[in-house]
This record gives sequence, C-alpha cells and structure tokens, in this order.
Amino acid sequence: MSEPLKDFSAGAAFVNGQYVPVAEASISILDWGFTRSDVTYDVVHVWNGGFFKLDDHLDRFARSLQHMRLVPPYSRTEIAEILDRCVAMTGLRESYVAMISSRGRPRIYGSRRPADCANTFMAYAVPWVDVVPKSVQERGAHVQVAARPRIGSQSIDPTVKNYHWGDFTQGLLDAHDAAFDTTVLLDQDGFVTEGPGFNLFIIRDGTVLTPDRGLLEGITRRAALELCAIKGITAEITPLRYQDLMSADEAFCTSTAGGIMPISKIDQHIMANGTPGPISSMLKDFYFEQHLAGWHMTPVNYEAGHSELL
Amino acid sequence: MSEPLKDFSAGAAFVNGQYVPVAEASISILDWGFTRSDVTYDVVHVWNGGFFKLDDHLDRFARSLQHMRLVPPYSRTEIAEILDRCVAMTGLRESYVAMISSRGRPRIYGSRRPADCANTFMAYAVPWVDVVPKSVQERGAHVQVAARPRIGSQSIDPTVKNYHWGDFTQGLLDAHDAAFDTTVLLDQDGFVTEGPGFNLFIIRDGTVLTPDRGLLEGITRRAALELCAIKGITAEITPLRYQDLMSADEAFCTSTAGGIMPISKIDQHIMANGTPGPISSMLKDFYFEQHLAGWHMTPVNYEAGHSELL
Repeated sequence: MSEPLKDFSAGAAFVNGQYVPVAEASISILDWGFTRSDVTYDVVHVWNGGFFKLDDHLDRFARSLQHMRLVPPYSRTEIAEILDRCVAMTGLRESYVAMISSRGRPRIYGSRRPADCANTFMAYAVPWVDVVPKSVQERGAHVQVAARPRIGSQSIDPTVKNYHWGDFTQGLLDAHDAAFDTTVLLDQDGFVTEGPGFNLFIIRDGTVLTPDRGLLEGITRRAALELCAIKGITAEITPLRYQDLMSADEAFCTSTAGGIMPISKIDQHIMANGTPGPISSMLKDFYFEQHLAGWHMTPVNYEAGHSELL
Repeated sequence: MSEPLKDFSAGAAFVNGQYVPVAEASISILDWGFTRSDVTYDVVHVWNGGFFKLDDHLDRFARSLQHMRLVPPYSRTEIAEILDRCVAMTGLRESYVAMISSRGRPRIYGSRRPADCANTFMAYAVPWVDVVPKSVQERGAHVQVAARPRIGSQSIDPTVKNYHWGDFTQGLLDAHDAAFDTTVLLDQDGFVTEGPGFNLFIIRDGTVLTPDRGLLEGITRRAALELCAIKGITAEITPLRYQDLMSADEAFCTSTAGGIMPISKIDQHIMANGTPGPISSMLKDFYFEQHLAGWHMTPVNYEAGHSELL
C-alpha cells in the first residue's frame, strides 16, 4: 500500500503469478521456452474496449497446449481473467494481448526430460500493433516471396502457434534489403503458405482465395471468410501456387495484429495500379465497422481491474 | 561494497552488462530471442579448470552471428573475458558455458523490422551437464529414431546453432513414452541427421561413421574424428540411412555436454549385447585422458575473477 502505483500505460504483464509493467516482465534465460523455443502462445486483440473472438483464441490456445503437452498452472477461466486484468490495468481501448505457456525449467538440475519441467504461464497487454504499419497500409503492402521454404509442416505443425520464426526472419531480412515491406513463404512443394504473423488472401475475377496448407489457421482469416459470406462474395480455401499470386487482381493479409491489410505488390506484380484494391478496401472497412457494431466482442471489465489495482 | 556477496556456486550469468547469479538471469518476454527464437548461441565446456577448444567455439559463434546478421555489443576478446569471468565467479572446475546473442527489441515501438532492434549478448556458466546422464552412459543410451523429420536445412541452417528445437522436443516426448533415453532424427529424404544436443556416430567392421548432412558440425564431433586419427581408426563423414543404424556394431554420441557417450540400442537393434562397445568405450576414455593432458585446453583465470569479485 505504501509503494507508489506503477505505470502500466506502456503495457501490463502477468509473470510468475504477479502483475508487473511489461518493461519488467522477463523469463529466465534457462527456461526451455527460450533455450528450446519449447513454448506456445496465442494473441487476441482488444478494439474499442472489447476482446475480439476471445473464445476462439482461448480454444486454439487450449489445442496448442494439448498438442505440446504443456499444462500451465491456470485454468481457462483464470486465463481469461488474467487477460482481462492485464488490459484493464493499462486502460487501453485498443490492445494486443498475448497468452504464453513455456516448458519452464527442469525440477532436477541437468535433466533433459520435458516431463521434469514446471510449465509456466505468462500474459501481457500492450498498445495495438499492426503487422503492416498504417502508413504502408494506405498504399498497400509490398510483399516479396521468400527464397527459402517455410519450415515443413511435418517437422513443426504450423497450426500450433509457435515461435519458430527463423525462416520468417530470413525472409524479412531479404525483403527489407530489396525494399519490400514483408514476405510470404512457399512450402517445399511450391505452395503458398503464410507470412510472418499473417495469412494471405488474393482476389481474382471477384473471387477471394486463401491458401489451404502450411499455415496457422488464423482467427482473422476466418473472420475475413465470414465477412465475405455476409457480403455475398465467393471465397475459397484452396491450394495456391506462385503463378496464382502473379495473376491476382488484388491481395490482402489478415492478422490479429492489424486486421485486414491491403497488399498492392507481390514481387514485381503490381495490383490495382499499386493501390489497395476495391474489394480489399471494402473488407477492411467492413471489418472495423463490424467491430464497432459489437461483432464477436467481449467487453473488457475495466472497472474491476482498476478497483483491484488500488 | 556494503551488499552481501552473492552466491554464484549454482552458476554465474552476464546479462544486460552485469554479472548476476544464474537464477536471477532473465530476458524480456518481448525480446525477439524469445518471441521469434531470433537468437544464436554456442556452448563451450570447462573440464579440469580449462576451456576445451575455446577458439573453435568462438569461431563458430562468430560465423553464426554473421549468418544471422546479429551484432552483439562486445568484441570477441571481450566475450572470451566474460566467459572466463563467469566460470571464475562460480569456482567450478567442470562447467557448461553458454554465449548467446538475440535480436533484442525494436527501438521503435511496434516495428517488425529486425534492423530496428538492439541486439543483446548474454553468457552463463553452470555446473557440468551430460546430454546422457552418467548412469545411462554406463549401460549405453537407448535411442529411438523419431517419426517426424528434422526441420529442413533449406528452411533453418543447422550449422548455425539455434533454438528451433520443436522437432527434437516432439522426438524426445515420443522416445520417453516408449522408454528410450533420447532420439535421433532423419531428414525428409531419410538420411540420418542428429539428436537433441548431440551428433551421432556408428561403428561397423571397425570403421567409425558419422552423418554428413542436416546437422550442427559439432566441435566434439570433430574432436572424436581427431581422436580416431590419433588411434589409427578409420573414420568417415558419410551419408547414413536407417538401415545403416540397424547394421551398426556399436554407436556413440558426441556433445559439448558430456563428451563421447556410448549408445547400446537404436530402436530394436541392440549392440554389443546391450553394453557400451569396445571402440566407443576406448574413445570415451581417451577423450578425457586427452583433456587431462591439456589437449586443446585454455586454463580458466580463476584468480582474476575472484579478485575482481571482492
């Protein structure tokens, strides 16, 4: 009570059972979440004071935990409360909210057995993040197709959200060297997969197409398909190859970090005269209109968070 | 000066420019070394008070940094001093010593560009670790060949030491379920690669064989080849397939974490009546004899570390 109130405006985190400003939130350098990337996570966003599709994110996180045989020390209900509290402490109306569980450290020194570890749970809420910066969204992102293939689905299941991003990072470095904004990866058979933190969509002859393999089944991806259905736009989940990208009329990417974000160039293929295409722009606007209308929204309980803080 | 001396016997770490007990050493949960596994590392061991092949480890770390375009804020000479100091602070005569550099965090909030990040450097020295526990080494390790393939070399270069261990972790979980000690992975074409933290060797008709692809070029692997040359044993780096493992007379694994460690069973193939084979055992003993004789050893400067601590 005598301690000064901490400033959570830059973000609030929950680590080791305690709420701290995100700048103070850390993990042991011996945690296998770091030294083996033995960790899964999920990210949900808050917009206009509400979580978007919170249950879908909690469902996916539960499936990821089960796949990796991680058992965090909190129940689903407790996790939902922690996420709510993190956002409430920041007071943010638009926020990027992460939940993370790592293998932790072995209870027996030197053990190399995952079963010997005490699994962790962490969460944090920070100000809204866009995978593609807003200024870039205005002209449409320029996307380079990566030279290296995406890590194979047989080795690392991409439907289980993970931090194995080395292939993405290499693709990003190459893309930035070539003055592109971001990258998208093909799999070893040449099929389009996803980019660092987003799913890809193209539009051809009025039909919306998104890849069927080698990717995280994004919740914003699913939302985009739902919006297409509402608008009566034909949309398909289908195998896509490089030449499909090169013949697209429009393209956009989807992510919890930013929503629906237009793309105006893929490699040397310029779409819609180098601007966001009409269907992409309409879907982007509709996405945020639906947010404002409360679509799939769970209000953040700001008051409860605040009162407990005092 | 008035603070009580900290206890470094469980390990000493260097993080954020400061020496701390390893239990206090942590990394921000927002560091891309964690959230993107955008990090490289190396591990050198100390045995009988000396670093083994320190220059080889520093060389490999420098190559890994260059490949990943990471620039830690310390020179090679400074890094060597930090490693020495970490060991000296613990007083350990046998130690596992790690050097790590991560992408860090972007200097601009929300940036997704690796180039915007301030790269980090960390190090720690902890008590000696064996990839295969000593009690298991006595009977020889039981190794299961994993069902899932190793992450492809085109996606993640295995010669650049990395924490993308999801494929290893899945293999370990499966191996432990089936009462094996550890696992070894094949690549997508069926060629033998490596295990979690070790290189594999087999012996057939008196010839030592080790895989040529899809693996970290281990410094203990190279040492084992050098020991074979000294002893006049023919050794080859060569493609190996599953059937080669099933026809081996002996097998062993090599790692900085443990040296040369015999294997007595791979899947259902039992070697040397389920005990460490004669050539494997000889090489293991010779490895530690050579250590005692000062082979490739750089003495730790324990006194300097101690005096600065006071």
